[in-house]
Amino acid sequence: MKEVVERMRPLFYPKSVAIVGASDNPTRFGYARLKCLLDFGYKGAVYPVNPRLAGKEVLGLKCYGSVLDIPDEVDLAYMDVSARTALSVLRDCGKKGVKAAIIFAGGFSEVGDEGRKLEDEIQAIAKETGMVILGPNCIGVTNLYANLCTFALNLGNLNLDARSLEPGKISLIAQSGTLSVSFLLLSLVRGFHPGKIVSSGNEVVVTLTEVLEYFVEDPDTKVIAMYIEAVRNGRKFIELCRSTTKPLVALKAGKFEAGKSAARSHTAAIAGSVEVWNAVCKQAGIIQAESFEELYELSMALASPLRPHGNRVAIVSVLGGPAVIASDACERQGLRVPKLTEESVKRLRQILPPIASVTNPVDTTGSVMENINMFRDALEVVCQDPNIDMIITMPPIMHAPSLINISRAVVDAARQYGKPIVVVWALPFGVKMREFEEAIRILSEGEVPHCYMPERATKMLSALLTQTELEKKKAKARGF
Amino acid sequence: MKEVVERMRPLFYPKSVAIVGASDNPTRFGYARLKCLLDFGYKGAVYPVNPRLAGKEVLGLKCYGSVLDIPDEVDLAYMDVSARTALSVLRDCGKKGVKAAIIFAGGFSEVGDEGRKLEDEIQAIAKETGMVILGPNCIGVTNLYANLCTFALNLGNLNLDARSLEPGKISLIAQSGTLSVSFLLLSLVRGFHPGKIVSSGNEVVVTLTEVLEYFVEDPDTKVIAMYIEAVRNGRKFIELCRSTTKPLVALKAGKFEAGKSAARSHTAAIAGSVEVWNAVCKQAGIIQAESFEELYELSMALASPLRPHGNRVAIVSVLGGPAVIASDACERQGLRVPKLTEESVKRLRQILPPIASVTNPVDTTGSVMENINMFRDALEVVCQDPNIDMIITMPPIMHAPSLINISRAVVDAARQYGKPIVVVWALPFGVKMREFEEAIRILSEGEVPHCYMPERATKMLSALLTQTELEKKKAKARGF
Repeated sequence: MKEVVERMRPLFYPKSVAIVGASDNPTRFGYARLKCLLDFGYKGAVYPVNPRLAGKEVLGLKCYGSVLDIPDEVDLAYMDVSARTALSVLRDCGKKGVKAAIIFAGGFSEVGDEGRKLEDEIQAIAKETGMVILGPNCIGVTNLYANLCTFALNLGNLNLDARSLEPGKISLIAQSGTLSVSFLLLSLVRGFHPGKIVSSGNEVVVTLTEVLEYFVEDPDTKVIAMYIEAVRNGRKFIELCRSTTKPLVALKAGKFEAGKSAARSHTAAIAGSVEVWNAVCKQAGIIQAESFEELYELSMALASPLRPHGNRVAIVSVLGGPAVIASDACERQGLRVPKLTEESVKRLRQILPPIASVTNPVDTTGSVMENINMFRDALEVVCQDPNIDMIITMPPIMHAPSLINISRAVVDAARQYGKPIVVVWALPFGVKMREFEEAIRILSEGEVPHCYMPERATKMLSALLTQTELEKKKAKARGF
Repeated sequence: MKEVVERMRPLFYPKSVAIVGASDNPTRFGYARLKCLLDFGYKGAVYPVNPRLAGKEVLGLKCYGSVLDIPDEVDLAYMDVSARTALSVLRDCGKKGVKAAIIFAGGFSEVGDEGRKLEDEIQAIAKETGMVILGPNCIGVTNLYANLCTFALNLGNLNLDARSLEPGKISLIAQSGTLSVSFLLLSLVRGFHPGKIVSSGNEVVVTLTEVLEYFVEDPDTKVIAMYIEAVRNGRKFIELCRSTTKPLVALKAGKFEAGKSAARSHTAAIAGSVEVWNAVCKQAGIIQAESFEELYELSMALASPLRPHGNRVAIVSVLGGPAVIASDACERQGLRVPKLTEESVKRLRQILPPIASVTNPVDTTGSVMENINMFRDALEVVCQDPNIDMIITMPPIMHAPSLINISRAVVDAARQYGKPIVVVWALPFGVKMREFEEAIRILSEGEVPHCYMPERATKMLSALLTQTELEKKKAKARGF
């Protein structure tokens, strides 16, 4: 096993957690953080620490006056204290032999020289003790494989039972706490869950590049998503990216002048130029996302195990307008919408009603709502067509049973024929409809990516195509 | 009053509706259409028509064997029957003196010559009787001002009480039934409601251009959104667009080769080239949307009464990462993120905690979650800054009370200072959180546009800027 996996273990899979600054006041982060950890169903030992509450109970757990008072070993310590206090607590952690720590507080190098000095001290402690320190100015780690979440989410507000969240294949490194939470929440709405999320903050000890190294080695991570304001160790970063065939998707912010100065005050990093970044992505084999939602959606597409053999797309739609938009969007993305074979056209004519369109895009018409076999058979014909590499399909929007039936048929077809399929909903996420939620669950479980509005689907398919080429190129470079 | 308003009245404000093809079978459109109309709280007389059910009751209403049997006047007749049957029913409607009819069925010119002949007959009946006929191959009209909806929505599925839907300022003409429904559902999720929506289908009698003419005259319509596959009466269309200062936002599909052929089989129209369309938009003063969601979001922004005086944007954020993305996105959209005045910087330093960033973007830090006055005061300083024309603001994501408090503060500031503000949520729509829904309601009521992810906000601000220039230009052209 690679050294990085062993080194990062206490951060991602701690056997015990101390929450320094734990509070009995529900309005404080020190309370929310503890509650969130318990709500996620974390199974290791949890030790609240707060001198003011020493000997009392917080959320049913005995509170200690100092980490030094904890009778057992501590793998991971949360520092829910101010910048200045964090340093003295960190020294205690060093004495105690704590293996990893997360510093949440801001007020370090991003605010000036005084903060920079504090960071130097953190670095010195890390060097001396070997402690793995994440932050400061971050929100830490979520690892659904270990029921671990340091994000202080109020799950009551979210109507969420976090214990039952299935861990997924996507891991995210984000130089933004907000976007770490946002990614997690987006995945709850959209159905493809992440496995691990890291908010890396000011990266005094653990850097984005080191987390990347860990994700490259982590067997549960199949897709690596990144929100990057600045890379501190460029050469190593590029080497790592080139070394892996795991899909890498990145959203780079701070590309432009205005963004750069904002990034500087955000995490105290120096951001590079657009051109430099584009060159890095090309060299390193990184797929670029143009927005945060796209970062999630491309990760979702790449988390599906299917890869296309070419750029030829069939559109199988119950809907007219979105099919037209999808055709346009394919062309804009350099994807082709070719003719189906004569054989396919003949078979489709037998299957579909006379008013259906049996050219590509295939417009099944709404008749399939009353006859799911019709949709299933038409989809099969298209999947079997040798002219077709990938499929975009669009279920009807208001017919509840077909939402579920079509989702099932799509999952079956993707499994059987091995061609990537993306489902495009004309139903906006957030519409209150039980069957829609169920359909999303079916697709996610079946690893069929899905999105709202066709332009997104073509970007997803285009990313699949790029990744397929990257995988070939990387495999070849390694001499396979 | 313009002739078009009087002519279209029975389509948008019918005093009575006959539903031909009404059914007592809940799986049929003829049932769903009637139920939907009643669920929307339509207040006029409703007459189900179905020879098989003559004299019986459907959903508590007496059913007639033919429109000719209805004892009272009929303003609007739904044709929930097949293409062929529609013609004979339409003739009955002519005899009865029905003023408007909607033909839902497909199977007309989009499937070939035989269908084209049927359309010729429809046209002849319209000419002879003066009936206003919408469709065929459409889903009709929603007019929240008249509690009218012909979309056959299953409101039980959607957990929706449609009677209480406040009508809004945005009206949509769409050459797609799906996108008509999708626009309505999106508006329910996002909070800015439409007023009127028309799905125009094959446009045998009533065309997109005629509906546009109506919306230009309709006093309740303040923004006109359009989903266009092809314009049939180009010169009149451009004239109308040029004649109005109401914001016009359009998504054009069928721009590319693939899309064009799809559009042809969808609504039997011939689509033009990208270049032609770009020229039309420029000449006509139309703001182009690049996706369907953008069509909605730009309409939402333009529905707000505030207009900017320049392109200088301030970003006031509780969040770091999204502020960096927003800065980048402003630059990409040609918006400036200038320095605040020294006076503003000084005042912000007094208001915000020491670790806050008081340059633009202003990063208030999370302290404002515990002290809403801090946020309110900081926002006021920025609104008063003479260097600033528009504001993007980003509330925290998980602190439920600040979602509501910040929304209220933003509505107040927009009202008081008259500068456009867009709220960017890092919370994806669809997250289950009561306070988030409440915050969306507050913003919508206060006419403050909002979106998910900062790139969208900059597009909205950029559209506001374009519209301001268009309004000036159009006013000048008219000699004001």
